[in-house]
Amino acid sequence: MRFSLGSSLAYRVETPTPFVFNVEVAQFPAQTICSEQLQLTPSGPIERWTMPESGNRYLRINVEPGDFRLRYEAVVDLNPQLLDANAIGEIAAAELPLEVLTHLYPSRYCQSDKLERFARRTFGALPPGYERVNSICNWIYDNVDYILGSSDALTSAFDTVTQRSGVCRDFAHLGIALCRALGIPARYVSAYAWRLDPPDFHAVFEALLNGPTGIGWYVFDPTRKAAPNGLVRIGVGRDAAEVAFCTPFGAVEFEPPEVWIEGEGDANAPMTTSAVKTEA
Amino acid sequence: MRFSLGSSLAYRVETPTPFVFNVEVAQFPAQTICSEQLQLTPSGPIERWTMPESGNRYLRINVEPGDFRLRYEAVVDLNPQLLDANAIGEIAAAELPLEVLTHLYPSRYCQSDKLERFARRTFGALPPGYERVNSICNWIYDNVDYILGSSDALTSAFDTVTQRSGVCRDFAHLGIALCRALGIPARYVSAYAWRLDPPDFHAVFEALLNGPTGIGWYVFDPTRKAAPNGLVRIGVGRDAAEVAFCTPFGAVEFEPPEVWIEGEGDANAPMTTSAVKTEA
Amino acid sequence: MRFSLGSSLAYRVETPTPFVFNVEVAQFPAQTICSEQLQLTPSGPIERWTMPESGNRYLRINVEPGDFRLRYEAVVDLNPQLLDANAIGEIAAAELPLEVLTHLYPSRYCQSDKLERFARRTFGALPPGYERVNSICNWIYDNVDYILGSSDALTSAFDTVTQRSGVCRDFAHLGIALCRALGIPARYVSAYAWRLDPPDFHAVFEALLNGPTGIGWYVFDPTRKAAPNGLVRIGVGRDAAEVAFCTPFGAVEFEPPEVWIEGEGDANAPMTTSAVKTEA
Amino acid sequence: MRFSLGSSLAYRVETPTPFVFNVEVAQFPAQTICSEQLQLTPSGPIERWTMPESGNRYLRINVEPGDFRLRYEAVVDLNPQLLDANAIGEIAAAELPLEVLTHLYPSRYCQSDKLERFARRTFGALPPGYERVNSICNWIYDNVDYILGSSDALTSAFDTVTQRSGVCRDFAHLGIALCRALGIPARYVSAYAWRLDPPDFHAVFEALLNGPTGIGWYVFDPTRKAAPNGLVRIGVGRDAAEVAFCTPFGAVEFEPPEVWIEGEGDANAPMTTSAVKTEA
Repeated sequence: MRFSLGSSLAYRVETPTPFVFNVEVAQFPAQTICSEQLQLTPSGPIERWTMPESGNRYLRINVEPGDFRLRYEAVVDLNPQLLDANAIGEIAAAELPLEVLTHLYPSRYCQSDKLERFARRTFGALPPGYERVNSICNWIYDNVDYILGSSDALTSAFDTVTQRSGVCRDFAHLGIALCRALGIPARYVSAYAWRLDPPDFHAVFEALLNGPTGIGWYVFDPTRKAAPNGLVRIGVGRDAAEVAFCTPFGAVEFEPPEVWIEGEGDANAPMTTSAVKTEA
Repeated sequence: MRFSLGSSLAYRVETPTPFVFNVEVAQFPAQTICSEQLQLTPSGPIERWTMPESGNRYLRINVEPGDFRLRYEAVVDLNPQLLDANAIGEIAAAELPLEVLTHLYPSRYCQSDKLERFARRTFGALPPGYERVNSICNWIYDNVDYILGSSDALTSAFDTVTQRSGVCRDFAHLGIALCRALGIPARYVSAYAWRLDPPDFHAVFEALLNGPTGIGWYVFDPTRKAAPNGLVRIGVGRDAAEVAFCTPFGAVEFEPPEVWIEGEGDANAPMTTSAVKTEA
Repeated sequence: MRFSLGSSLAYRVETPTPFVFNVEVAQFPAQTICSEQLQLTPSGPIERWTMPESGNRYLRINVEPGDFRLRYEAVVDLNPQLLDANAIGEIAAAELPLEVLTHLYPSRYCQSDKLERFARRTFGALPPGYERVNSICNWIYDNVDYILGSSDALTSAFDTVTQRSGVCRDFAHLGIALCRALGIPARYVSAYAWRLDPPDFHAVFEALLNGPTGIGWYVFDPTRKAAPNGLVRIGVGRDAAEVAFCTPFGAVEFEPPEVWIEGEGDANAPMTTSAVKTEA
Repeated sequence: MRFSLGSSLAYRVETPTPFVFNVEVAQFPAQTICSEQLQLTPSGPIERWTMPESGNRYLRINVEPGDFRLRYEAVVDLNPQLLDANAIGEIAAAELPLEVLTHLYPSRYCQSDKLERFARRTFGALPPGYERVNSICNWIYDNVDYILGSSDALTSAFDTVTQRSGVCRDFAHLGIALCRALGIPARYVSAYAWRLDPPDFHAVFEALLNGPTGIGWYVFDPTRKAAPNGLVRIGVGRDAAEVAFCTPFGAVEFEPPEVWIEGEGDANAPMTTSAVKTEA
């Protein structure tokens, strides 16, 4: 499926200020960039770095005093595998690829070490597999209120499990923490999200599972707000700390980001009910 | 019902050390002290204070260097009201006696302010009354593991709701925090607990409800370990901070306390299934 | 010294809503109410309760749907003792009046139990006495930024000691927690505060010390924003949970409170540099 | 300088249990492995993975029921650069290599986001450079008690800054969190530590600074317990989560690890007082 997407970010700084952005979409087998363009106003030099272990594309721009705007547009082909959820199992610790160990560790906003007993008591008796991760998402959806402004940049899964409110970032963090607590590698994904209303940068998560086409990352959205087969990945990481769309090194004023994404041709197709595998 | 009970506490200090104890049972209409005796080894002067708003009996003893032992024994008649749980409701905020407001406030180990959404989401839809508080206890019993050593003196309800393990103190704190979050006054109770096995100082909680005999405090034990009509109260307070059985002001060595309680005559009677009202 | 003071509070509710207020000033030997009046618009019945152990005066009013305004005015004579700070010492645990034990316990927003080592390492080597408590206030003043909006109703001393920002409530909580951690009884005080700019309800704390006129409560303001001899007490408590100026039991809209206080005659007198003892 | 070092780890499991170990030393320009050997009792297959971005060497071993012992020995040449601390500065955000951004992010045990104000208030006015990081270490050394058993696997920098006690792991976490809060990339290092008494696995941290030989990682030990030029690195990571020496996937019994390290020839040389740069 083909998507046209983009974002427009506006800032004002008073002193020269370096910014790191992560707004460009990633490139990997299931996600092909057909075209893209990045426009800075005023224009200026860009430093780029693509993180080898994640494919995240980071930009650094040193912004001069005054107004600054970054506009990014892309056309992307998305071809995730749509698979039968019932055929997808978990992976025993003895079989986990060693390079995914980092996605089992607790991280700043996903304190899986403090949530182990909770995770085991609540989900430990369910049969392992895709449906168990889906049950975690259902539990989050049923037990946490989605309320804009109810959390902030310091809010973590440990807070959310008790306070029971948050936004997509918090829902994803809690899903990740609970998966890791059960021994399921999980990672945070920032994305342009088709059908998310209102449009915004979205956060979901992926769990490493073993399905009919082998081991790979399956995407989950505990907010149930976006189409799982319409998530165009920007970055993956251990948690939100790693994939902020904008990190300014200094005081800035900003406007809310504008974000958009349109599906081509099949915008009225029903959302998939299959499991969505994004990457091996 | 008549109980013989007591405790024996042993300490060793190296410098003169003041101790505050709260081990003597309280006296109130439903709890009559038939006889009691307190023995200090070595003997020495005792300062006493009974807190007017709670009836808690505090002792201060200045212990000289060396070994110190306190032994307390009492015979107590317990006559709580046993009432039909279905006839017991909650009390509207407009009708709450103003003097119980303190038992609605969050306290050190019962952060009801941080657990409001959780409490409302989990128990808010249940019909108000004794059975709702009982449902809170059932939830705690079903979702928190009773594990000796899994918590410490710093553990609070906010921790327990996530970590899902604790001892009687933690079970009581969580019950109190959830009640207060729902607008139900609740207080911590330390007690000699009939049939608790192994015997020890026990912690339960009381909620203020409105039953067939008027407004009063009803006792709840979310550990389900003791007979609710066999709890001889030592102290009540906002949480464990207020009713420590021993507070030494200095470094001490100690042995585990010995605690005992025997019911007279009817030690084989079944535990009551009625609601137990201790105090108006 | 005589003060004219008052507050005006405005709310709007959609359903009948009980409110508890604590805005009327306390009466005790060093604080005499010359005159006062309370006006409700619309008028209605008031329930009153004065807490025996604190003297706090609580009002309950059941507010009908619509706009509601409470206006309180009083003229108060304040005669605290002004004493030489150097002559004021701490009180050994063996000598503490037993009825102040509650002000040594950790409370919701003053987790003295978690701050013991910090308190001892930072202030443990200072000579005990008024000046040690003053040093705690200086440390808070020097190390915590006073920033409106940087904390909220859930913020506690444990947070403030690390986050290093807050408002008067947080400064008082931290002072209390550090005193208790050192064995000094301390309590939270809400007050009308002369010379506080801009005027608002203020929060300070009192520590129990032993001076030339015997044991008593000495007031401290770590914000250094108000005149210590111009604090007209509304309530005292273990922490802010106990002396909220307004507790509505339901959803309300409100305007920021208006608060005022004027000193009569000597409004240009210098602030006292003596220790201020309010109550024995 | 040449070191002979090793460790011996003993476990007992009741069911087949996968273990991941990170006890083998890393290989990089300043650290050459002359010889090493790994011995398993009973012997069995080993899976290996070296993490590209860190050089950490992970082993996975599937342990059969019964006793299991791993013994590792190595001879290592260590040639860190010893440089003049005064010539070493910090790196402006605009100049930071983009691949070290991950070491600026908050992590599970290093919540730099929650410690920003504290870090800036305490260390923000110091001149940037090696000596500022050294001042952080001095502050930790002066304000945190090194007490075995005073912290556990869940303890984080946010806890330590308030509780003021911990072990090498906690000292390192706090140093890392404070550096990151000031914009200095910092990473956790597990090591065999020459002259550490008693011998054990040690934890220190490295900060990215700019010295006479260019940008690189400088090692800091806020415990002041080991020789900074005698730290043989096992692993680096964002915090302890990433470089646990042993991660069993299941219940195990274990003995305390035996760890040893000897310097060859110059065991009586004084500890270096220069800055120690380990890696570019």
